[in-house]
Amino acid sequence: MPEVKSKKIPVKAKVLSRVNVERVSPEIDGGQFPIKRVQGERVVVQASVFADGHDEIAVRLGYRPVNEPEWRYADMLPLGNDRWEGAFEIERLADYVYTVQGCIDSFGSWQRDLKKKWEAGVNVSVDLLVGADLLEQALEKAVGDSAEKFRSLAARFRGRGPVSEAVALASSEDIQRSMRDFLAWDKGALYPKELHVAVDRKQALFSAWYEFFPRSWGPEGKHGTFRDCERLLPEIARMGFDVVYFPPIHPIGVTNRKGKNNSVICEAGDPGCPWAIGSSDGGHKSIHPFLGTLDDLKHFIGEANRYGIEVALDLAYQCAPDHPYVKAHPDWFKWRPDGSIQFAENPPKKYEDVLPINFESADWKNLWSELKSIVEFWAGQGIRIFRVDNPHTKPFAFWDWLIEDIRKNYPQAIFLAEAFTRPHVMYRLAKGGFTQSYTYFTWRNTKQEFMDYLTELTRTEVAEYFRPNFWPNTPDILPVHLQSGGRPAFIMRLILAATLSSNYGIYGPVFELCVDKAVPQKEEYAQSEKYELRSWNWNQEGHLKDVIARVNQVRRENPALQETRNIRFCETKNDALLAYYKMSKDGRNIILVIVNLDPYHTQCGMVTVPLPAWNIEPDRPYLAHDLLSNDRYIWQGESNYIELNPHISPAHVIRVRPHLHREQDFDYFM
Amino acid sequence: MPEVKSKKIPVKAKVLSRVNVERVSPEIDGGQFPIKRVQGERVVVQASVFADGHDEIAVRLGYRPVNEPEWRYADMLPLGNDRWEGAFEIERLADYVYTVQGCIDSFGSWQRDLKKKWEAGVNVSVDLLVGADLLEQALEKAVGDSAEKFRSLAARFRGRGPVSEAVALASSEDIQRSMRDFLAWDKGALYPKELHVAVDRKQALFSAWYEFFPRSWGPEGKHGTFRDCERLLPEIARMGFDVVYFPPIHPIGVTNRKGKNNSVICEAGDPGCPWAIGSSDGGHKSIHPFLGTLDDLKHFIGEANRYGIEVALDLAYQCAPDHPYVKAHPDWFKWRPDGSIQFAENPPKKYEDVLPINFESADWKNLWSELKSIVEFWAGQGIRIFRVDNPHTKPFAFWDWLIEDIRKNYPQAIFLAEAFTRPHVMYRLAKGGFTQSYTYFTWRNTKQEFMDYLTELTRTEVAEYFRPNFWPNTPDILPVHLQSGGRPAFIMRLILAATLSSNYGIYGPVFELCVDKAVPQKEEYAQSEKYELRSWNWNQEGHLKDVIARVNQVRRENPALQETRNIRFCETKNDALLAYYKMSKDGRNIILVIVNLDPYHTQCGMVTVPLPAWNIEPDRPYLAHDLLSNDRYIWQGESNYIELNPHISPAHVIRVRPHLHREQDFDYFM
Repeated sequence: MPEVKSKKIPVKAKVLSRVNVERVSPEIDGGQFPIKRVQGERVVVQASVFADGHDEIAVRLGYRPVNEPEWRYADMLPLGNDRWEGAFEIERLADYVYTVQGCIDSFGSWQRDLKKKWEAGVNVSVDLLVGADLLEQALEKAVGDSAEKFRSLAARFRGRGPVSEAVALASSEDIQRSMRDFLAWDKGALYPKELHVAVDRKQALFSAWYEFFPRSWGPEGKHGTFRDCERLLPEIARMGFDVVYFPPIHPIGVTNRKGKNNSVICEAGDPGCPWAIGSSDGGHKSIHPFLGTLDDLKHFIGEANRYGIEVALDLAYQCAPDHPYVKAHPDWFKWRPDGSIQFAENPPKKYEDVLPINFESADWKNLWSELKSIVEFWAGQGIRIFRVDNPHTKPFAFWDWLIEDIRKNYPQAIFLAEAFTRPHVMYRLAKGGFTQSYTYFTWRNTKQEFMDYLTELTRTEVAEYFRPNFWPNTPDILPVHLQSGGRPAFIMRLILAATLSSNYGIYGPVFELCVDKAVPQKEEYAQSEKYELRSWNWNQEGHLKDVIARVNQVRRENPALQETRNIRFCETKNDALLAYYKMSKDGRNIILVIVNLDPYHTQCGMVTVPLPAWNIEPDRPYLAHDLLSNDRYIWQGESNYIELNPHISPAHVIRVRPHLHREQDFDYFM
Repeated sequence: MPEVKSKKIPVKAKVLSRVNVERVSPEIDGGQFPIKRVQGERVVVQASVFADGHDEIAVRLGYRPVNEPEWRYADMLPLGNDRWEGAFEIERLADYVYTVQGCIDSFGSWQRDLKKKWEAGVNVSVDLLVGADLLEQALEKAVGDSAEKFRSLAARFRGRGPVSEAVALASSEDIQRSMRDFLAWDKGALYPKELHVAVDRKQALFSAWYEFFPRSWGPEGKHGTFRDCERLLPEIARMGFDVVYFPPIHPIGVTNRKGKNNSVICEAGDPGCPWAIGSSDGGHKSIHPFLGTLDDLKHFIGEANRYGIEVALDLAYQCAPDHPYVKAHPDWFKWRPDGSIQFAENPPKKYEDVLPINFESADWKNLWSELKSIVEFWAGQGIRIFRVDNPHTKPFAFWDWLIEDIRKNYPQAIFLAEAFTRPHVMYRLAKGGFTQSYTYFTWRNTKQEFMDYLTELTRTEVAEYFRPNFWPNTPDILPVHLQSGGRPAFIMRLILAATLSSNYGIYGPVFELCVDKAVPQKEEYAQSEKYELRSWNWNQEGHLKDVIARVNQVRRENPALQETRNIRFCETKNDALLAYYKMSKDGRNIILVIVNLDPYHTQCGMVTVPLPAWNIEPDRPYLAHDLLSNDRYIWQGESNYIELNPHISPAHVIRVRPHLHREQDFDYFM
């Protein structure tokens, strides 16, 4: 035989593991981005794991909070065709990592082969000795009961008792279980990546937002203050909102200030648009003097907290021409060849009162740090929720860096991305760290549109990193269906937003007052609060405050509505009826929602519900309790008749109670 | 304003690129494995590329042979929704790398905005100055004609001529094209991975294999030699095969040698199974003395090459108990507690004449190097094609390392994986470097099965790295459908293998002689050549050599059949009719195959063909020329009647000729 050349074995072959771990999911862009979870949620992980040859393998999921060195493990079980699944629960408010490990299960392989040989009548006496060797190897690590068990079984395999008995002992489930604790994981294969979970507090997944312009709530048409707004808090709390979000509260520019209805002519007394930030009174770290002082804001925050309400601020990285940055850092803006400063534009649209910030400025490092310090400033005042204006017009790298850095010091921080743009861009912002995101919900109308969109958001990889926040309206959007559908349309969109998505919000009071007057041919509000002070009669006939209060109460009382990924659609024969249900993790809370998408006419039809998924036998009656109307129906079977008059209620929000027992039924219905 | 803290900007934000490049495809397991191509093939690459804000972007595909530092580039074009596509062709027999680059197209954005503003009646005089600036920036790099063009246009934009004319000049396609050569790629984003293409010679994609046992071809029932086999070469060449593959040609063990029909009792004169490799005559680098000498083999190789045929050897890493390795390296094998050596087994099956090699031996580095040296030895004798026996029972890491290393010195090397096992394992071996792979073709029978399997192999990611080689039979497999279907079944399977896949092979002469006698209830050949010498009448009545010759000729003359990924299926109303077509890259060669999957009965029905894909107008006649029967039909429209009597021919292999011109038609049909 020729001399064996001693060639270097390259890295790939250095770890002599026969197991292969691949296609771990979820894994976002090769592990570049984390998946998202809140405390208490589960992470279900799958992987393809297999070895050469015929040996049995064992697979486990390793996970840990990123700041704790100790790995925890969960068994992964075979789904068939070399695919394995395991899961773990997020216990701490800390980012986690997870990975997958596989190893040869020598004892399991031996058990399987022994059984096959024995059944085929093969002499297994030497095989029993092999088993004894394996047990004795485990003894190197085993102590106590296990050690005793292994020692005595090895002795039995080496002894002279009946072979049939030894084979029976070798196949016992008990020994199988005990030996699994001594698998040679150190000789196994580890998936080469640690995949990340960005973990947020529960409110990141379950929240109800109320947006309003504080300046509209002054007495007798005067500019409102934070102090004025404190009187709104009891009613906002009664409606069941837990986040109050203010448009920018900073000084508003004077140069090119917009007049009413976005007019370029500004009349005396026009307050300007809050997104035109900055004047001689200060910039992004200052408060508009008409709204009050920093202390007033803090007082408002304190009062809100007493009602269980958090305050969210708007983060709009753009400047009015009068912003102090312009003089102090002219190089943070773009200048045109004629020496004029570059205003914001999206040709042919122009934003005459706003300058974009030049994120590619030569001085970008200082600029970015300063912009981040704005978040740090407000976080220092107790603000933990930021609604970010137009993040898609700023570099992704900026957000990646800013959010990562802020989360280090403020793990409770929540960033809501207001990016109404193309899907890739919206998803990239979410991957880069935004906690929640505005969506296309506002423009989805038909049954098929809702089903397709919710399927994309909840049943594809998108569900792992993109947390939707559904808004039926915003100060920028009075959608066409609300302009013409009247009160039923408002209620319908409220119920859709609040039950399709566990995060949702409304812009009030125009929402609950069913304000539907738009600039002709546009989705802009007529007489928009963006450009003028309005005053509102909050108790106007037909207001929706009670409906909203009821819907939010139902959300709070029903865990099924506190997540979004659990949505499943039900078949309806009538395309004007959208039906879906959500079930809590423990299966005990089931909410079935049926919405009439037609705000004008009564619609009816059969709805098919998934009795097996609900663990209801087809021949047993069950209770359908409409939590909005408080009506109760006894249903049986999977097909049920629904009729919804939008002028009475455009939707059923039904709690399904599977196990009706005769004796209790009477009580229940009385 | 507070002092700006100078915090370190982390890596992510260090390259201030506003462009995002993601989801590049093909990319196998995050770039861990290469895709496969042969010389002359194209690589089509897609990526999601986008920037923040509203700027236009440009995207290009960078590629190069891995051993050349200079990148080549191909434009990528938008497919919509931020997805881009580009392609390049493999020109050299060298592995390639590719990646994707995106950058802001400042001039393109300026052109677009200028046009919008002009059309909206906005004053654009300052915008023209911005354009002049951009042109002058390009002047830093531009020379010659371009420089002249940019200089004069910039002057025009700064001058006083009519604005409308300047806008027209600014929008010209010519300037758009010229400016694209001066995009700021250096400020753009580069996908952070270089993805690999493993490039093979053309035969890796297009080959016809003929396997036979040389020992069956001696005169008058004597053990055949390589010299004896030389007389087969003209006929193998006439049949159109370009690879001759021998089962192992090494000395065969004596201990536990198998007798006829896999009997554990070996009679005097029984030659043993060629896969029981090694005896006192030598091991994997030796030749069975009955077959001849190394010089005889080399002479055979030389003769084969004269006929355009290459010789492939079998690489079976296992040993007979008499293999020299066993004495020299007992630690390369497994030993049992009773001191006996471990034989190969897959309980309850036993392989009494074969020892598995212990790849996990403590001395594995020397073992692996020695095993690799076997390939190097035969490569040194001119062998470039290896059919690898049971690679799935050896560590993946071993193959990864061996094939990578061999390909460095022998880029022409081809490894065919004989892994009949679970999909993940077969695919992992292909990813790790195997050039071609055996498949499940042998057990696919129904129309739906063929469509599903070919779709998986050619229209999913699998197509990028797994090159199928279809075998209707092997020495281990006489499938059930060939045991009962008679001559029509053999012809049907031949045509399926040869036209579904551009790589295929048969085990002869049992295939062309339609040998269908199996061990009862098994897929094993009765009186298998694996265990005894056979002698054959190659010209026996009903042999398929002429059909095979015709099928291989059709493959050689029609580029459409020289690739596999180009297969598309056609609708048929009769499930016994399978119809598919392949079209060459230039669209000029179209082969439509229709197979009657029923070997017993005539089947007929309508077949729908894709006229638009073939560029044939629905109202024009076209020629369907059956290349097997030489029948010609004039067809019109997409629906055509097919009737196939399996006893005449179980298939049409039709060349479709789109453009019939009256004058030529007569000539053609004469």
